[in-house]
Amino acid sequence: MSIEQKYVDAAVAHRRALHKRPEPGWCEFETTYRVVSTLKDFGFEVKFGLDAIEPAAVMGRNEAEVDAAIARAIEAGVPQTFIDQTGGFTGAVGLLDTGREGPVTALRFDIDCVMVEESTDPEHEANQGGYASEIAGCMHSCGHDAHTATGLGIAQWIADHQDALKGRFILLFQPGEEGTRGAKSLMEKGWVDHVNYLYCCHIGGDAKLGEGCIAESGFLATSKIDITFTGAPSHAGSDPEKGRSALIAAAAAALLMQAIPRHSQGASRISVGTLHAGEGRNVTPVHAKMQVETRGATHEINQYMRDNVYRICEGIEKTHDVKVDVVTVGEGTTLQTTKEGTRILSEVMREVLGEKFVTLPSPGASEDCTFLMRRAIECGADCGYFMFGCNHKGHHRANFEIQDEVSLGVGLNILARLVEHLNGR
Amino acid sequence: MSIEQKYVDAAVAHRRALHKRPEPGWCEFETTYRVVSTLKDFGFEVKFGLDAIEPAAVMGRNEAEVDAAIARAIEAGVPQTFIDQTGGFTGAVGLLDTGREGPVTALRFDIDCVMVEESTDPEHEANQGGYASEIAGCMHSCGHDAHTATGLGIAQWIADHQDALKGRFILLFQPGEEGTRGAKSLMEKGWVDHVNYLYCCHIGGDAKLGEGCIAESGFLATSKIDITFTGAPSHAGSDPEKGRSALIAAAAAALLMQAIPRHSQGASRISVGTLHAGEGRNVTPVHAKMQVETRGATHEINQYMRDNVYRICEGIEKTHDVKVDVVTVGEGTTLQTTKEGTRILSEVMREVLGEKFVTLPSPGASEDCTFLMRRAIECGADCGYFMFGCNHKGHHRANFEIQDEVSLGVGLNILARLVEHLNGR
Amino acid sequence: MSIEQKYVDAAVAHRRALHKRPEPGWCEFETTYRVVSTLKDFGFEVKFGLDAIEPAAVMGRNEAEVDAAIARAIEAGVPQTFIDQTGGFTGAVGLLDTGREGPVTALRFDIDCVMVEESTDPEHEANQGGYASEIAGCMHSCGHDAHTATGLGIAQWIADHQDALKGRFILLFQPGEEGTRGAKSLMEKGWVDHVNYLYCCHIGGDAKLGEGCIAESGFLATSKIDITFTGAPSHAGSDPEKGRSALIAAAAAALLMQAIPRHSQGASRISVGTLHAGEGRNVTPVHAKMQVETRGATHEINQYMRDNVYRICEGIEKTHDVKVDVVTVGEGTTLQTTKEGTRILSEVMREVLGEKFVTLPSPGASEDCTFLMRRAIECGADCGYFMFGCNHKGHHRANFEIQDEVSLGVGLNILARLVEHLNGR
Amino acid sequence: MSIEQKYVDAAVAHRRALHKRPEPGWCEFETTYRVVSTLKDFGFEVKFGLDAIEPAAVMGRNEAEVDAAIARAIEAGVPQTFIDQTGGFTGAVGLLDTGREGPVTALRFDIDCVMVEESTDPEHEANQGGYASEIAGCMHSCGHDAHTATGLGIAQWIADHQDALKGRFILLFQPGEEGTRGAKSLMEKGWVDHVNYLYCCHIGGDAKLGEGCIAESGFLATSKIDITFTGAPSHAGSDPEKGRSALIAAAAAALLMQAIPRHSQGASRISVGTLHAGEGRNVTPVHAKMQVETRGATHEINQYMRDNVYRICEGIEKTHDVKVDVVTVGEGTTLQTTKEGTRILSEVMREVLGEKFVTLPSPGASEDCTFLMRRAIECGADCGYFMFGCNHKGHHRANFEIQDEVSLGVGLNILARLVEHLNGR
Repeated sequence: MSIEQKYVDAAVAHRRALHKRPEPGWCEFETTYRVVSTLKDFGFEVKFGLDAIEPAAVMGRNEAEVDAAIARAIEAGVPQTFIDQTGGFTGAVGLLDTGREGPVTALRFDIDCVMVEESTDPEHEANQGGYASEIAGCMHSCGHDAHTATGLGIAQWIADHQDALKGRFILLFQPGEEGTRGAKSLMEKGWVDHVNYLYCCHIGGDAKLGEGCIAESGFLATSKIDITFTGAPSHAGSDPEKGRSALIAAAAAALLMQAIPRHSQGASRISVGTLHAGEGRNVTPVHAKMQVETRGATHEINQYMRDNVYRICEGIEKTHDVKVDVVTVGEGTTLQTTKEGTRILSEVMREVLGEKFVTLPSPGASEDCTFLMRRAIECGADCGYFMFGCNHKGHHRANFEIQDEVSLGVGLNILARLVEHLNGR
Repeated sequence: MSIEQKYVDAAVAHRRALHKRPEPGWCEFETTYRVVSTLKDFGFEVKFGLDAIEPAAVMGRNEAEVDAAIARAIEAGVPQTFIDQTGGFTGAVGLLDTGREGPVTALRFDIDCVMVEESTDPEHEANQGGYASEIAGCMHSCGHDAHTATGLGIAQWIADHQDALKGRFILLFQPGEEGTRGAKSLMEKGWVDHVNYLYCCHIGGDAKLGEGCIAESGFLATSKIDITFTGAPSHAGSDPEKGRSALIAAAAAALLMQAIPRHSQGASRISVGTLHAGEGRNVTPVHAKMQVETRGATHEINQYMRDNVYRICEGIEKTHDVKVDVVTVGEGTTLQTTKEGTRILSEVMREVLGEKFVTLPSPGASEDCTFLMRRAIECGADCGYFMFGCNHKGHHRANFEIQDEVSLGVGLNILARLVEHLNGR
Repeated sequence: MSIEQKYVDAAVAHRRALHKRPEPGWCEFETTYRVVSTLKDFGFEVKFGLDAIEPAAVMGRNEAEVDAAIARAIEAGVPQTFIDQTGGFTGAVGLLDTGREGPVTALRFDIDCVMVEESTDPEHEANQGGYASEIAGCMHSCGHDAHTATGLGIAQWIADHQDALKGRFILLFQPGEEGTRGAKSLMEKGWVDHVNYLYCCHIGGDAKLGEGCIAESGFLATSKIDITFTGAPSHAGSDPEKGRSALIAAAAAALLMQAIPRHSQGASRISVGTLHAGEGRNVTPVHAKMQVETRGATHEINQYMRDNVYRICEGIEKTHDVKVDVVTVGEGTTLQTTKEGTRILSEVMREVLGEKFVTLPSPGASEDCTFLMRRAIECGADCGYFMFGCNHKGHHRANFEIQDEVSLGVGLNILARLVEHLNGR
Repeated sequence: MSIEQKYVDAAVAHRRALHKRPEPGWCEFETTYRVVSTLKDFGFEVKFGLDAIEPAAVMGRNEAEVDAAIARAIEAGVPQTFIDQTGGFTGAVGLLDTGREGPVTALRFDIDCVMVEESTDPEHEANQGGYASEIAGCMHSCGHDAHTATGLGIAQWIADHQDALKGRFILLFQPGEEGTRGAKSLMEKGWVDHVNYLYCCHIGGDAKLGEGCIAESGFLATSKIDITFTGAPSHAGSDPEKGRSALIAAAAAALLMQAIPRHSQGASRISVGTLHAGEGRNVTPVHAKMQVETRGATHEINQYMRDNVYRICEGIEKTHDVKVDVVTVGEGTTLQTTKEGTRILSEVMREVLGEKFVTLPSPGASEDCTFLMRRAIECGADCGYFMFGCNHKGHHRANFEIQDEVSLGVGLNILARLVEHLNGR
């Protein structure tokens, strides 16, 4: 079985349009507008913005960036009324009920971009195709443009084939996957509390064009933590004893975090990724900002790392007499799937891909669809996770490409066959 | 005796024009152009740019900033030919020979601004007067505009009164005093190797409007040091062992610098003023930049601190397997004067200021005219240093003011009487 | 099949005598004397001291401790002539040739004690039995007394049964297993370069009395590192700048070691176990001594940790202007076995233990017989490793017990059956 | 005027006896017994032990050391009844009332030794004289034996000459000056609350034999702080995450203390003098003990340093999840004298020493008689401090000598003449 070419063509067109207008987490107003409009065109009922996500569970949303993104979206033609309806929050959920008794199947696609400046190399795919990023410092270098496009493609296919289907569909278009900031807000809105199946997928990784693979477990649990140190100023020459150096406090904190003891039960990670401190050479630094990330092979190991980071910050407040504010701006957990969910998926993929259905190592990075899958499993659903390949030069890089967009067709074929399998009449 | 009002008025006009166009160290092209033109108008022979300073002794000059400053100066009307004549370097020296046998007297004025955004408070003096800084992030918040203006004022007075004077005059208009980056380049050009007297002065400090005071010693010796750490990237989650964190290396260096043992022979200082490190939360940081400053009550103590900073950097290269580049971008030494130079100055100031000639604590900050004075004394000259007051709200602040510009008159009176005393026929 | 009781009784008697006189690594003179004498009585050819080990490969031998141990051994009745023959080094190898063509089988037993003060609890096994340690601060709390005794037991059995056996036997009695200091010195002497089989074993662990298990892989590779920091003294009040604090240098080194980045390929460990620094409160500390241990799930990971420790020390020499001496005093690698070696062992153990032959987790600590096994495998031998249980309260504890010495019988039965299997006619 | 030789001879005899039996702070039972007996012989009323000092103000007293000292004293012939009367505390105060109206004059002498092993060089003075220390690890290497002997000498002189004197005398024999642990306990007992004069003195320093000098100010304020870190054990290989390393916590604390910002108002000092941490190479360290010392040119600066040490410890409790106990075991303040007190002393010393009355730099170390002098001045007394010279090879060294005991005569002459001046009829 193979999906008709028109679905692939439509998805490729969406992907290119999205690639041109990449928006970072919680700023996906143009993207959300495209998703909402398209889903509506297909006849889906659509919830978006505050009707799609639970704001209390939103992490790592920067008000100033959001304001700038709204202004940009309006300039790009997104209607003010739409913006108003979002309540300032992005993300969308498409709902379709076949009217027939049958399972509830949820599919999840992430929609945000990466903060990377796209390559200006004329050989670079998007430059060749004329759809390179128009937004400075932003690029779809992790393929979420392809995810969103694939999501719209399968939506179109479901709409077109609904007479042959039963049950209901919930298509989740999730903001803020980068930094693992968005899935929790969909989860807390309850979208996966009453589903029978939830499937998530990703393009690329170790899978090459035409290939696909399944992950049953993997990903590291992770916390993204922002830390602000506030000291007291003084002239470094004339009254050093009056200063409280936020820089030295942050330096000490960084060293102590890096020195958190290893965990015997599995891999742990600490990354003090950025530190910006100080106002001038001869002034005791008043401000320091730090971005930290912990990971763990299990939720507990990550929690151990995270607790240590928090405790170190609490202590540094004392040792250096500075104020330390700690905020968790993103979180992901480890991948959980069900045997049945994976069994079905395997069958489908073997069918669709034949010998291109390969076995690859479990993913080592982090993903926050893991929260949705965990919740769905707790609520009784079956879940699975797959990757469909593309030839690329590395995720999160300026020269990330989806070298042959035919790869979108691979994803669509798997999804369509899966839907048929689960919800076929 | 009191200088005629026209000299004060002219100085005030210069000061306001300079205040409007503040230029940081090694970027003073508009300022240099004004100084050169004005001195020429007064009949001085003028050396500027590479004819005034020794480029090998220039510290802390940023090529990109210089280029931007040149572009700005040209836009503001400075002729390209003038820029070409500077060789890309600022600073000027005015020479006047009375033709009569007599002492060689040098006076030094600094011309650069501070990297501070001027206050937008409508009550702020420069806003009231309509001559607030037009250059973003730059402000004459240490009074070097007044110094330059006073230097032009005394030049005018000398030119007008040269028939009553003997000997020769060397007026040094020094770039890059902030960060103590410029004096050495004048010193190495030899301007003070054959003078009989060298006097330097500063506005403000602890002296109030109308007051003046003398410093015989003081200032801390200082070094300004820029440090760049270069590590190796890796994904913090998937191969932490391959990374070499420039951030952690810099944090360790900062802590070790802060922990340099105290010196028994007098005050020492260390300031790790700024640190910017890292590219992203989940990437092992490759780049870190740090601004450091050491000080010492003596040249030796500062040298001890500076040597420790260098040695720590050398060690950190090893401990963290990163590359560490260390550059001294500014230097100042302690104030040295001569008994005779101070005796003459005291006499003059008592005469000019009466009971407003006050005793104030020695200055605790740093100044690089100290290099010129040291060299002059080594070459046999007598030297002195004085301050003339003004009511202000703190140097290097956004709301620094010279609240009553009459203070420029005080400085001019002292200088004119001093010149008369030293070079009167 | 079950070994005759007399062998167990003899082994238990040896074990109690050894338990009373525990000797730490490279100090096992009384123990070596007992082993040598007993093996000779059984008709073995015996090599000991410098004839058994390669001194250049000895690690962590403390001359002063050795001297004290020799004095103690002589006082306890070990002949001076024997001591002289050792060349000051402990360890023994027993050789027996059946005179018949057949495989060369090597068995290895470790003989040293732990630096733990034995419990004075009257309920404690050795106190009940009247064979508690007579040597202050030393105790057989890891069961090497049982290993040595079992080694003598199987020697006796082999000697008694040699007519039914073929090939040759090499019984290795290894000094300094604690701290992983001794195996390399046997390995470098070439004892396992020409064997067909090498088996090693340990009592206790997770195996209970009567049980036995096999390990095919496991143990962490490890390095034990001693570090000495030498600074320069000064009076902390009157000339702090002249001091070079070995304490602060060591503290910085400890923090940096603790902060060595994690390794993506598996578990890594760092332990800064002890630090002793400083001479007095008001003197800049001149001396610091530190005991460090690294571990890794693979040889490469341990090497990565070890290299970092060395590099940090090299850097600290610079950052703190102190002398840093680093010595590796012990080393172990990961466990390697052969399929065939393990297959034979499994068959034997299933036969001897029946359902008490259990599967237990791989050992997580370190052992240096791993060096011997690696070398033997490289030279073409088959190897295996097993544990035989006993009820105990934790290795390396003051109240470690071999609660029912019948456990020695279990070990002897396995070994005897193994020998029969490998070398039976 | 010159004191009779018999007083010098008696003092020298006492000094040698004391030198032979040096006792550290709060252990001076033999010394106190000698002082008490001798003063009683001279007819003084004597208070000692708990009648001389306020136990609540005692610092740095080690119960175990005290017990050992008592046992040693009893063995050396000090009666048990005397020990009982002390209440376990050392120190003595001799009181003599002439019965005549007149000023109350207090003199203070310290009596404890230094923890230094005396030189075994046969050329060393005490070895030559046969009165080298009999107590291992203890030595009068700061001359407090001479101070005590001089105190007994002036007591004898006062007793002999009381008919020629008026007023009252209070001779304070203070325990625990080393580590600045004892003066506060005399102060809090109120001995100097109602005196007219208090004089303190020290032998040696920069003054040579025959010379004497006065100090009007000087000494650094100081705090001696003992810190205990208690973590949690774990096997460094198998469960590092369960450990809480007292060693790493102490290392971090040491670095942060060393990095306390300098103080603009004068000299500050920090010394992390000793650190002992950890139980074994492969066990997470549970215990760490650290000896720290702060100093400051003023009481406030030392307080600033001390407060930082305490605050760092409080923070480290959090950052490393360990228990940190901090105890101040010694304290001294800066030297305060009165103009009148110094005027009288100058007159006396000029008279006694002639041109050997020299001017020397202010003492840079610490002394706790400063507490007594401060309190006395607050209560209205006049105070002075002097040093009398001796040829020596450095205080606190194994080869410290009082090379010509005639120096004791110099001290006695000054004191006798001072007493005559203050209390002569």
